[in-house]
Amino acid sequence: MKCKAAVAWGPGQPLKIEEVDVQDPQKGEVLVRMVATGVCHTDAFTLSGEDPEGIFPAILGHEGAGVVEAVGEGVTTLKVGDHVIPLYTAECGVCKFCKSGKTNLCQAVRETQGKGLMPDGTSRFSINGEPIFHYMGTSTFSEYSVVPEISLAKIHVDAPLEKVCLLGCGITTGIGAVLNTAKVEKGDTVAIFGLGGIGLSCIQGARMAGASRIIAIDINESKFEMAKQFGATDCVNPKNFDAPIQQVIVDMTDGGVDYSFECIGNVQVMRSALECCHKGWGESIIIGVAGAGQEISTRPFQLVTGRVWKGSAFGGVKGRSQLPGYVEDYMNGKIEIDPFVTHTMPLEQINDAFDLMHKGESIRTVILFDQK
Amino acid sequence: MKCKAAVAWGPGQPLKIEEVDVQDPQKGEVLVRMVATGVCHTDAFTLSGEDPEGIFPAILGHEGAGVVEAVGEGVTTLKVGDHVIPLYTAECGVCKFCKSGKTNLCQAVRETQGKGLMPDGTSRFSINGEPIFHYMGTSTFSEYSVVPEISLAKIHVDAPLEKVCLLGCGITTGIGAVLNTAKVEKGDTVAIFGLGGIGLSCIQGARMAGASRIIAIDINESKFEMAKQFGATDCVNPKNFDAPIQQVIVDMTDGGVDYSFECIGNVQVMRSALECCHKGWGESIIIGVAGAGQEISTRPFQLVTGRVWKGSAFGGVKGRSQLPGYVEDYMNGKIEIDPFVTHTMPLEQINDAFDLMHKGESIRTVILFDQK
Repeated sequence: MKCKAAVAWGPGQPLKIEEVDVQDPQKGEVLVRMVATGVCHTDAFTLSGEDPEGIFPAILGHEGAGVVEAVGEGVTTLKVGDHVIPLYTAECGVCKFCKSGKTNLCQAVRETQGKGLMPDGTSRFSINGEPIFHYMGTSTFSEYSVVPEISLAKIHVDAPLEKVCLLGCGITTGIGAVLNTAKVEKGDTVAIFGLGGIGLSCIQGARMAGASRIIAIDINESKFEMAKQFGATDCVNPKNFDAPIQQVIVDMTDGGVDYSFECIGNVQVMRSALECCHKGWGESIIIGVAGAGQEISTRPFQLVTGRVWKGSAFGGVKGRSQLPGYVEDYMNGKIEIDPFVTHTMPLEQINDAFDLMHKGESIRTVILFDQK
Repeated sequence: MKCKAAVAWGPGQPLKIEEVDVQDPQKGEVLVRMVATGVCHTDAFTLSGEDPEGIFPAILGHEGAGVVEAVGEGVTTLKVGDHVIPLYTAECGVCKFCKSGKTNLCQAVRETQGKGLMPDGTSRFSINGEPIFHYMGTSTFSEYSVVPEISLAKIHVDAPLEKVCLLGCGITTGIGAVLNTAKVEKGDTVAIFGLGGIGLSCIQGARMAGASRIIAIDINESKFEMAKQFGATDCVNPKNFDAPIQQVIVDMTDGGVDYSFECIGNVQVMRSALECCHKGWGESIIIGVAGAGQEISTRPFQLVTGRVWKGSAFGGVKGRSQLPGYVEDYMNGKIEIDPFVTHTMPLEQINDAFDLMHKGESIRTVILFDQK
C-alpha cells in the first residue's frame, strides 16, 4: 500500500512529506494506522545528526497511537481494530531481560531495531523501490507503520489516541522514573533538572508519590508556571546564583534531596544532579540522553558516602504489561496529559513542530493524521 | 597517665614509638586498653601524605580491639572490663542519619573526628605538653586510647581480641558491602577487583550469600590461591588479556555480572568494575578510597541502560548495633578471620607491618600489645 509519511533524508535537513510504499506485515508483525503522534526531543536529536545510531533516510517518530489495520502470520495477541501504542522498548516476555524481573529493557528486537530494520533484517518502507529505514521500531511519522507484535501495547478502546500517544514516550518516562526506578515515597524531597515534557512528568510523578518538596530547576523561567501547576513547590534558576546549583539545592534542603532526576542530557547537569543528593542515601536518576562520546564524572567519595547513581529508560515501564495501566490512570484522572499538548497540527506542518520545540515554545506538539 | 604509642610525626616518615601522655576520659568518653590492632591500607594512605584530611602529628590505627579501663562522666552503656571494638563510624542513634534507617554514616562526631580531635574539640594525647592528634576517632596504635562512648561496639567477652580486631575495618567492610550494600542473593554472579583484605572479605561475603560465580581479579597472581580458598570460582589477571578487563568479564558471564566490587581505590578500575556489570540490573559498589581530587567517569549510557553505581563505607554496617553480631558470626564459624592474619608482631615493629603490606606479602599484620 501507499501512504503519506514525513521522511528524514539526512541529518540536519527538514523532514519531507513523501508518498511511501508500505509492505504488508510479515510473520509476527502488525500494520498500524497512526491516529496521532507526539514530536519528541529524541526525534530532534536523531535528526540533528548527533545521535551516533542515527541512520538515514528514515521515518522518525516514536510517540504514537493508532489502530491495528492488519496482522501478519502468527500474531495472536492483537486483532484488526485494536487500539495500540507502539513501543520503542519491546516486551517479548521470554528473553533473559524480560524474565529477570529486574528491568524493562527487553533485548528481543534490539539489534535489528538499532539498525532501522524489522526483526527479519529488512525494511517495510520504500520509495521507488529504495528502502527507507525504520526508527526505534516505531516510525510514527507515517500514516501507516509496520511494528512487531511484541512492540505494541494494546490499550483501552475508549482512550483518546490524540492524548495517550504521549504515553508512548515522555510522560511515561518521567512518571515511571519517579515511581518505578527511584520509587519515591510519601514525604521524600526531589529535585528535577530540566522542565521539558519529561521533567514536567517527573514533577507529576513526584506529586503522585506524595513528595513533600519538589524542586524544579531550569534556566528558562517561562517553564516555571507550568512546573508549579504540576506540583513543583520551588522553582530555581541556576543563573540567579553564584554558587554551583548543587550547593544551592543542598543549602535549601538541609543536606540535599532524597532523589534527583536529570531530564536534559547534559553531562555537567548530571553531575550537579548527583551531588545535590543527600549524603547517606540520596539517589540520582539520569533520564536525559547525552551526545555521542560525552562522559559523566564525579569524585568517588560522592558514592562511597552513600549517594547512588542510576539511570532510567522509558521509566522502567514494561510496555505491553504496564502501559495499558498508565492509559487507564489517565482515563480515571490520576495522570494528566492534556496540559502537555500545547499545539496540534497535521503531518504536513511537522517541521513547524520541531521549530516550536527548539524555541522552547511548546511542551508537546501532537501531529493529527487525517481520519479516513 | 603515660603509655607507649606509635606516633606519625609527618607524611612519609616511619612511625616512632614514643611515651605519650593520655588524659582521663571526659564526659561521654571511654579509656580503652588496646589488646590488638590490625594495620590497614588506610593507615598507610594517610601516612603517605596522599590523604587530603591527614593531620600530623597523630596516632594512627583504626582496626583495634581492647578492654574498657575507665569511663568518663555520663557513660551508661559501657563499664570497666567490657570488651570493645573502636568504631571510626560512630552510631549515636539520634542524629538524622542514624534515624533515617538508610545509612550507617552517623554524623554525630564526624566534624571533630575529621580534625583529629575529640567531640569537645581537644585532644587527649600529648607529648611534653604538645598535643598529638587522634585519627579516625580510634587511634589504635597506642596502648591506651580515649574514644567516644558512641564510637565503641561492646562485643562478646569470650571473643579473641587478637582476631576480631580485624572486624573493626577490612573484613566487616568487605562482607558488609556484599551483604548489606549490594544485598547479593543466592545464584548471583559477582566480580571482585583487588584481592587485599577487603577484596578477600568480599569473596567471603559472596560465598556466604550463595553467589554462583565469584570472579576474583588482581594483577598479583600470588593472591589467587587465597582467593580460591575463600570461595573464588575464577581468578583473572587483566594483564593476560589484550581486551579491557570489563570486556573479558562480560564475555565470561554472558553479558556481565550482577554485582561488582572495587576494593583498590583506583578510579580506572572503578570504571571497569561498573562496565563489567550486566545491562539492565548490574550494580557496582565502590569500596576503595581514591587519591585526593581523582574522579571516576563513564558514559551515562551505562547507567541509562540499567547499571547502578554506588559505594559502601564500613560495609554499611552500624557499628554499635550490628558489629557484635559479626563477632558472634566469627565465634560460631560463619565468618573466617584467622587466614587474614598472616603476621603478628609487637608495637615496636609496626614499621615492618607497613613494609610487608607495601610489598604485598601480608594480608593483615596484627600488632599485639604487651599484656599487663
